[in-house]
Order: sequence, then structure tokens, then C-alpha cells
Amino acid sequence: MANVSPLAPATVPELPTVAGVRLATASAAIRYEGRTDVLLAVFDKGTTVAGVLTRSKCPSAPVDWCRARLAQGRARALVVNSGIANAFTGTKGQVAVKRTAALAAEAVGCKATEVFIASTGVIGEPLDAEKFARVLRPAALAARPENWKAAARAIMTTDTFPKLATATARLGSAQVRINGIAKGAGMIAPDMATMLSFVFTDAPIAAPALRTLLKREVVDTFNAVTVDGDTSTSDTALLFATGAAAHRGAPMIRNASDRRLAEFVHALHAVLADLAEQIARDGEGARKLVRITVKGAVSKHSARRIALSIANSPLVKTAIAGEDANWGRVVMAVGKAGEPAKRDRLSIYFGETRVAAAGARDPSYDEKKVSAYMKRDVIDLTVDLKLGRGLDRVLTCDLTKDYVAINGDYRS
Amino acid sequence: MANVSPLAPATVPELPTVAGVRLATASAAIRYEGRTDVLLAVFDKGTTVAGVLTRSKCPSAPVDWCRARLAQGRARALVVNSGIANAFTGTKGQVAVKRTAALAAEAVGCKATEVFIASTGVIGEPLDAEKFARVLRPAALAARPENWKAAARAIMTTDTFPKLATATARLGSAQVRINGIAKGAGMIAPDMATMLSFVFTDAPIAAPALRTLLKREVVDTFNAVTVDGDTSTSDTALLFATGAAAHRGAPMIRNASDRRLAEFVHALHAVLADLAEQIARDGEGARKLVRITVKGAVSKHSARRIALSIANSPLVKTAIAGEDANWGRVVMAVGKAGEPAKRDRLSIYFGETRVAAAGARDPSYDEKKVSAYMKRDVIDLTVDLKLGRGLDRVLTCDLTKDYVAINGDYRS
Repeated sequence: MANVSPLAPATVPELPTVAGVRLATASAAIRYEGRTDVLLAVFDKGTTVAGVLTRSKCPSAPVDWCRARLAQGRARALVVNSGIANAFTGTKGQVAVKRTAALAAEAVGCKATEVFIASTGVIGEPLDAEKFARVLRPAALAARPENWKAAARAIMTTDTFPKLATATARLGSAQVRINGIAKGAGMIAPDMATMLSFVFTDAPIAAPALRTLLKREVVDTFNAVTVDGDTSTSDTALLFATGAAAHRGAPMIRNASDRRLAEFVHALHAVLADLAEQIARDGEGARKLVRITVKGAVSKHSARRIALSIANSPLVKTAIAGEDANWGRVVMAVGKAGEPAKRDRLSIYFGETRVAAAGARDPSYDEKKVSAYMKRDVIDLTVDLKLGRGLDRVLTCDLTKDYVAINGDYRS
Repeated sequence: MANVSPLAPATVPELPTVAGVRLATASAAIRYEGRTDVLLAVFDKGTTVAGVLTRSKCPSAPVDWCRARLAQGRARALVVNSGIANAFTGTKGQVAVKRTAALAAEAVGCKATEVFIASTGVIGEPLDAEKFARVLRPAALAARPENWKAAARAIMTTDTFPKLATATARLGSAQVRINGIAKGAGMIAPDMATMLSFVFTDAPIAAPALRTLLKREVVDTFNAVTVDGDTSTSDTALLFATGAAAHRGAPMIRNASDRRLAEFVHALHAVLADLAEQIARDGEGARKLVRITVKGAVSKHSARRIALSIANSPLVKTAIAGEDANWGRVVMAVGKAGEPAKRDRLSIYFGETRVAAAGARDPSYDEKKVSAYMKRDVIDLTVDLKLGRGLDRVLTCDLTKDYVAINGDYRS
């Protein structure tokens, strides 16, 4: 395994339990040897679910399965495997998903349609669902409310560290919890990243409200991260709400605009934002986290497009890898975005330093100061278009030789 | 300087003269030392010109200058420098262009408005036009009808070999010539590439007809090349027609649809296509030329968008660098393009071998055979969407560690 990213959080957080969620991991040798590669999550009866799935025209079999199951909004189990994505595997892939759901349903004691499935890894390789047969029943028996770190580890592919986040919020008179895990690393771009993320809460929230909340909160979190502009066939973010906090007095929420949700929404956003940033920090080969803010655009949508044009520019990303404050390439990326921009009006900042304005290099620009800034782990790059009030921010990372090494050798 | 690309043509072609065109190069130490960095081309009276310029919203000062001059359609001189792009240089940049035109006009004996200018190199650095003062007059005196290779060398930046192409065509009773030079290497994407290209013919063609021809012929040549998806502030392709072949009996052409142009159009396309392929072959760090064909799309436009999605995917490009027939990443890139595609209908080929079809790996797919194919210098990747008759092809190259090295160190 690669060394842990230098941008990894200093410690992996210890997650508390979420009432109604039990977890187990297993080694099914689906592709990897000597590590866990299966996660089973078991939910209490009454658990609701919402999801956001890849917009790829070539989605994986598990994505098709989840899309069909999300309408009903109920979940009792989640099965995730790493190593093989079960994408572009034809009819066999669909059969494998169905079989996995049946095995999990039997192990957990629920309907197959209440089982959610996600797979990540190589595209195009067939997934042998019988490998789940050995592991799912023992996993169902072993599932415990702890195990969060193990769960986050089991779903990793080229990730160098497990990604976990947690938050609490008051809902009515009760304290509710939100725990989230994610995996990312490569093929990361909105919408979504090649990311899997699973978020769990004990708050009692009806599926339609949960759906609205998740859709709204991914916009500036998971959908504002890009590692390489490549969107996966398998991107899946699922939010499960067990409702167990109702026993402690939390009110049942049926509407996403319910004012009692204020703290919950804030906490949910924090968990998703934390996981999204961890994904950027673990971009394949990443040595720097880059926060790109575009302001003064004609709209938020326009700001997003310009920010992504900068974030996905190989020339910007390699310059940052080289610790070079090459703002000329930022100009290039703004210019190519196809969005309203006026060359002679925009300003560019690295950190707090304005390096370019009024169509030219800032006369007071001190290259030494900016060069020192570029040596940091976290780089803030801001473009002010001075056209309107559109504001947006995306996260990305630099493009290093290690990205090429990781992706030139991944399959072999 | 980097080693010559392994994909370079075996020999640099010797270009014949084009009646009415004289060339000279000079060393003005604009940024580079110990090499030529200025090209002066001098044209006979009556030369017409057409151009295609970057669509960047942040164009360089020379691009603004050329755009304003192209309407009149007449040219007597071309000044090109490498090292500094004179882009995002504000009012000073405009003054520098004006001064360069005045110096060239004085040296050549023409109006400043008949001077075309192009600059390539670092963005944001001021260009000292006085550096041209020393070199343009001697260059005008030294200009000769030969010097093509020297001309192609003077405009190089990170290019590893000079790019030249030539063709002849019958026009009426005369043989006419078309010579072209280009530079590319990085920041290469439609529309255009960060490329400069200058094409010269002795055919007598009126400016409006020349414009129509050039616009039409760049679509499947220069605009079908991408190295990194980054579009430059400075992209410039100019086509100069001296008309000198009129003395040898070539008819004056006023209309692009004139049937007598058939051979000329064919030859022009060949020159542009040759230069475009050389640019892809010299993509920064390139070890493989990749030809991506998308067929069966709903339209040519849709095929182009899907082909570019594949060509600009870092994951596809790094896989090819690793000689890995990772068609799963091709599926990903098709899926993310946002264009009509049916997962269960499309086929993917590496060379002649169908690797995927009917939503899964081709059952007869022989990985060994394809692995051997991936070791070649030139890789043909074909996607057949089986939806319609839309067909398109783009050229790109692989993404290697050297691309990152070149672009992480370029300025420093």
C-alpha cells in the first residue's frame, strides 16, 4: 500500500455508536488478499434511506440496483465491497447484485429489496457473488454498534487513510448523532466523485425529507470536490436514518423545511464537508490540498464552472505540485471556461496576496512571499471576476508524478 | 532541452520555397538564451490573410491585435516570438504589440496594420518590445525564401522537434505550394491548441474565401487535437496567400466553393492534419500517440464531445502510459461525457480487437494480444455507440510522469 498522504488528518476520529446501526467487516478475497474487503451494515426496522448516485450514462450494476430501491425509501442492510466495481459487467453483473442482496437478506432476516449495495474497484471484471455466501452470515452475527474504523477501512481502494466524520445535533429534546464514512482517491469528480459515502443517523426522518436534505447538502460538499475530473460509474452516497432517537424523544420529521431540523442540517453539512475534504486530501498522489474560490461571477453556477475549470486544469495542478505560483495558468483556465469573464477586470490571489489585477501582474506583487506561500500544504486560490455576486468554492489537489504512477500501474 | 519525443517523425522535411514569402530568424534574448526566439516573415504586396484565434475570454495582446487586423485581410509581415506570451500584460502588453508592429513595418517597408504578431511562452510576464528594435531590421535584410527549418525552430517552446509540412496542388494550369510550420507541446486543446501555426501559399485567393477555407479545415485538424484539455490565451493559426502563382497562370479565386479549389483544399487539409498530428506526437512528456475514434454517435458533435471526454481523461491517459488496456476507464469517460450513450449497446476496440460489447467484457477478448498491442507507439482506440451515424476522431497522447515534471518546473 502507498504511504499515507501527507495531507491526512493527524488522527482518525473515534466514532460513537448510532442507535439502530450495527457493523461488521469481512475478508472475502474478492480481489485483494490479506485485508478486509466487505462491509455489512445492519439497520433496525423502520430505517429510512436517501441516496445520490452517479450521473454516468454507464452506471454500475449496484448503482442500477440502488436507484430502483431508493423509491421505496426503506433499508435494513448495506453491503459494500472493494476491489471490483461490478461495472460494465452486463447481465452477469445484474445477477451478481441480485444474488448478493438475496444472501444479505437471508443473513440479516429482511427482504432483498431492503438491501443496498455498493461496489468499488476495477471496472469490467466480473464479480463472483458466491464469495459473499461464506462471509455475510457470520458478519450478520458479528455485527456490532462499534467497528466504525474497520468499516471505513474495508471500503478503501487506493485511499491511503480511512475517512470518518461525526457530529451531533439537538432534534426536539433529544441529541441525535450523524456518523459518516467515505472512500475516494481517484476517478473523483462531480457529480459525484468516485466515491462511496455512507452516512448514518438515529434521527427519525421520513424518506422524502431525507432525500431533499441529502440532495441539497451534497451540492457544496461531495459535488464540490474534484481530483481528476473523471466521474465514476459507481458513485454512491447513501444516508440512512434509523429513527431510534424517537425513543429518546426526538420528533418524527416529515418535511425537509421543518424548522426543528436547523441543527441537524448544520451537523449533516459538517459531516459531508469533512468527508469531502478528506477525499480531496487523499487524492491520488496528492501533496497539496487546493481550495479554489471564485467570486464576483454572474451566478453561483458560473462561479462553479470557472472554479472547476481551474481545479481540473492539468497545467494549474502541475504548477501547484511544483510550488510555482503560476497565475498565468489560472488566467488560462478562467479564459477557457466559457463563462463570462473580463480579462481586464479580474483579480487573482494566492492566499492573501493579490498577484494579478487590471489585466496584468499586480505591481506590488512580491514573488518571494508568494513562493514561500506555495510551499504550504493547503493552498487557497481566489479569483474575483468583479462582474456580479456569484460565489462558489471547490476543493482539489495537485497533480504529481505519483498520480501518474498510481494510475499507470493500478491494474497490473 | 528535453530529449526529442520518441514519436517524432523520422526526418524533418525539407520545405521548398513559396513564391512571395521570405523568412529570417533572430536571437533577441526575450527569455531564452543561446537560441533563436524571433521569426520574421516578409510577404510580397497583395498577400491576403485569414486566421483562427483562441476563444479564450482572456486572450493575449497579440491575439487582440490579430483579431482587429484580420478584417482587412491584407498582410505584409509576420513577427513571432517565443519565450513570453505577452498575455495578461495589460495596457503595457498592448503598447508592446503596437511598438512591435511599428518596428516591423519600418524594417519591412509597410503599414503597421499589415503586420501580424504572435507570441508564445510564459503568461503574465511583460514583453520588452525594444528587444525587437535591434533584430527586425537586420532580419528584414536577411530574409530569404529558404530558412523554413530555422523558422520552425525559432517559435518552439517546450516542443522537442520543429514541426513542418508541405504539399502541392494544381490550381488552374499552375502548380501551387502550401508550406506550414507549427509549435505546440502543452496547453493544447481545442479551440485551438496552444499552438501557433503559420501556413503560407502562393495561390491567389481572396481573403474572404481564404477565411472560409481555414475555418472549415481546422475543425478536423487543429481543433481535433488535445494534449491536456487546457486552451491557451494565445492560440493563433494564420494562413497567408501571396498570390504569386498568378504569374504562373493560377486563376484568382474569390469564392471558397469554387470547384477549381478541390486539389488545393485537399492539400491544405493534408498540411494542417500533418501539423496537428505532429503537435499530438510532441505533447509534453508523450510516449504514445493516441487516435480516438467515436462512431455510431447521434451526431458528429456528440461523437466529438465523447472523443474529447476520453482524450482528456487523466485516467485513460495514464493507463495508456502504463500500457494497460484499461477499457473500464474508457467506459467511465463515455459515461461522464453527458452525451447519448447506451451502456449495453456500445463496443470498445483497442486496435482491431473488440474488448467490450453488450455491456460487458468481450468473451473472446485475449488480454495477451491486447497487452502486446498496448506496447506500440500509436494506439487506436475506437468506441462504437451504435446509436446513429455520428463519427469523429481526435488525436491525443498519453499522460506520463514527464508531463508532470515538465509542467511542475516550467517557470522555475
